Amino acid sequence: MSRTKIVIIGGGFAGLNVAKGLKSANADVLLLDRTNHHLFQPLLYQVATATLSPRDIAAPLRSILRDQPNLKIEMAEVATIDKDHKIIHLSDGVQHTYDYLVIAVGSRHSYFGHPEWEAIAPGLKTLQDAVRIREKILSSLEIAERVEDKEEQRQYLTYVIVGGGPTGVEMAGAIAEIAKKSIKDEFKTFDISETRIILVEGATRVLMPYPEKLSDIAKNNLEDMGVEVRLNSIVTDVQADGIRIGEEWIPTKTIIWAAGNMASPMLKTLDVPLDRMGRVEVGADLTINGYPDIMVIGDCSMSINKRTHAPLPGIGPVAMQQGHYAAAALLRRLDKKSVPSFQYFDKGTMATIGNARAVAVVFGLRFSGLIAWILWSLIHVAYLIGFRNKVVVMLEWGWSMLSTKRSVRLIAHSKN
Amino acid sequence: MSRTKIVIIGGGFAGLNVAKGLKSANADVLLLDRTNHHLFQPLLYQVATATLSPRDIAAPLRSILRDQPNLKIEMAEVATIDKDHKIIHLSDGVQHTYDYLVIAVGSRHSYFGHPEWEAIAPGLKTLQDAVRIREKILSSLEIAERVEDKEEQRQYLTYVIVGGGPTGVEMAGAIAEIAKKSIKDEFKTFDISETRIILVEGATRVLMPYPEKLSDIAKNNLEDMGVEVRLNSIVTDVQADGIRIGEEWIPTKTIIWAAGNMASPMLKTLDVPLDRMGRVEVGADLTINGYPDIMVIGDCSMSINKRTHAPLPGIGPVAMQQGHYAAAALLRRLDKKSVPSFQYFDKGTMATIGNARAVAVVFGLRFSGLIAWILWSLIHVAYLIGFRNKVVVMLEWGWSMLSTKRSVRLIAHSKN
Repeated sequence: MSRTKIVIIGGGFAGLNVAKGLKSANADVLLLDRTNHHLFQPLLYQVATATLSPRDIAAPLRSILRDQPNLKIEMAEVATIDKDHKIIHLSDGVQHTYDYLVIAVGSRHSYFGHPEWEAIAPGLKTLQDAVRIREKILSSLEIAERVEDKEEQRQYLTYVIVGGGPTGVEMAGAIAEIAKKSIKDEFKTFDISETRIILVEGATRVLMPYPEKLSDIAKNNLEDMGVEVRLNSIVTDVQADGIRIGEEWIPTKTIIWAAGNMASPMLKTLDVPLDRMGRVEVGADLTINGYPDIMVIGDCSMSINKRTHAPLPGIGPVAMQQGHYAAAALLRRLDKKSVPSFQYFDKGTMATIGNARAVAVVFGLRFSGLIAWILWSLIHVAYLIGFRNKVVVMLEWGWSMLSTKRSVRLIAHSKN
Repeated sequence: MSRTKIVIIGGGFAGLNVAKGLKSANADVLLLDRTNHHLFQPLLYQVATATLSPRDIAAPLRSILRDQPNLKIEMAEVATIDKDHKIIHLSDGVQHTYDYLVIAVGSRHSYFGHPEWEAIAPGLKTLQDAVRIREKILSSLEIAERVEDKEEQRQYLTYVIVGGGPTGVEMAGAIAEIAKKSIKDEFKTFDISETRIILVEGATRVLMPYPEKLSDIAKNNLEDMGVEVRLNSIVTDVQADGIRIGEEWIPTKTIIWAAGNMASPMLKTLDVPLDRMGRVEVGADLTINGYPDIMVIGDCSMSINKRTHAPLPGIGPVAMQQGHYAAAALLRRLDKKSVPSFQYFDKGTMATIGNARAVAVVFGLRFSGLIAWILWSLIHVAYLIGFRNKVVVMLEWGWSMLSTKRSVRLIAHSKN
């Protein structure tokens, strides 16, 4: 009899933890990812806003998993999954079979039925996205310096961030630090007081899942930093030269999208029930109903919190815990043991606002200001992969705070 | 009377030093560059070979020059220069006039009459080139892991570097370190002994301008590291699946070009005599004959070494010294003083081979091995711009030597 074959699709928080947990499994494990690295997504906004380099928050999957002889890694993109014949079709025509399959392909942003907005208002999910946004922000300042018409210049100096969740809040704070502080005295034809940062949120407050008091603190902090926070505001149009919020037209050349999630369209090929956000509905053991050999975990999975009966959010801690769980569940199945259901342990949630300020809920306790920022820093550094990255990220943060400089201010791709 | 207007084209070693030297000039200075950063080109090969990040060897021009109120910086590309009307036409249609013009636009690689080879065999001049080469090398290993046919796999594991000057030698050494050491134990379908690195040089030895003994040491060091050094070898064809050297066909998917220089084609619009490498012939004061208001410096300038009567090479020290000279000459001209001619002071030349080994000639003394590498390291760090970059580069080098790891192993752009 041939050895059991386990395939994992995706090397993010969820998939990587499955791979690690299967180190001692008596099975052949294959990890598929479109890129060659694991990405620490919670700090991606710092790459987009020129504090960190791509390498600081990414680690090669092969390097992380080099000590696992039962594991093979392939950089490849999955096109379709044939669950009835247990075959994975890659986009280059190669096929893989599996005995067990773990799907952890993550999500991209949702444009609420307007996919054409994506080309203008990029989201922030990959290193490529982050570098693209960084170059967009930096280029807008360069163009503003050269534009003679004041009206047109203002358009280049206006930054709109759509979505008041953690990513949107963090982006708005970081862009405010660049536009109001880092570039001071560097441009001759405009003053930093002319830069404008607008954060647009459809709900009644930013950071909706947080306690109301923390949302208010976050909003006040952002406003102190010069960000205009627009609540109860719906985006009705996105164009290359501006955005419409409700009835109001705001001329701008830089729109960043941080609203809504949509799971990978590849999941449609599974031909199983998906929720409104394109996520696969899974049972208490994170498998698909009727297909106990397929687990779906992380952002692309729609699972219910056993305690609160609400769907689990698409955040790092859920993905990591589901990854650990999936590996443990597979090991038990290989041993023909029964598998208990998944239970999420909510340790808390936190978001930075910039300027050494953050808001956090940790084990039910609420924090804000510097202490929340220190907690945030420690936890994010602790979860970063690789000694080098931990050290460099701490040094970079110290350097940015002391100098208010942004050291990754590079436009590598000529605009011409 | 309006203030004198000086325009500098290019923010490399040459142009940046002109801009710095004009800090106290009673003139309006405009610096034009296609990118927003100054690039430390001598370490570019370390970005291409995954030791350093782009940010480590680049610094934003605005940040370097923020304390110069008489200087304006524009990120723009020059299309043509009308020297008789003293007008610079940018590629976006904008025009600038000048009283004095300093041209320091650098060079790209020369493909010896085969421009079609560039798409297959990229050269190494910009950050974009370096990231492209890095991704090409890393992707070839990823594809090799997935290829079933042994012949095809070998093609992906063969790396050919054309040109045995400092860049070619440094690239070959660094690729050997990756392919023979850093990736050890990380791939399942091939062994590092199957990787092959070939350095092709048309002359009788590598590092032609160096003393013969150092060339021999460099060649032996490279061979110790597993590099095949082919001397007296001429490239006769370049295709997507291989390269022809003389009569021999070598199947490979990765060819890197480090041979020959060709100055920017924009210089043709000057309508003045250019040499075989497209460089502008200048007089002893680095101006164009008949146009004393235009200086051409750095890699795009063909000037004669007063001492040796040979053309000055396209290297960093020449560009820096010409930049200092140009600024001083302009200050004297603004004061209506006479300008002495340019004199190059040759402090020496050096190249690393990898593995903490290098060759160097400093003030006529020859060094090789570890001591040359330490000299090389100290001098390169000393000339890097920015305290942060100096510290980070030294840390990265220490880290690479201790761990033999390459930390920037990122393929950011999905290949699909």
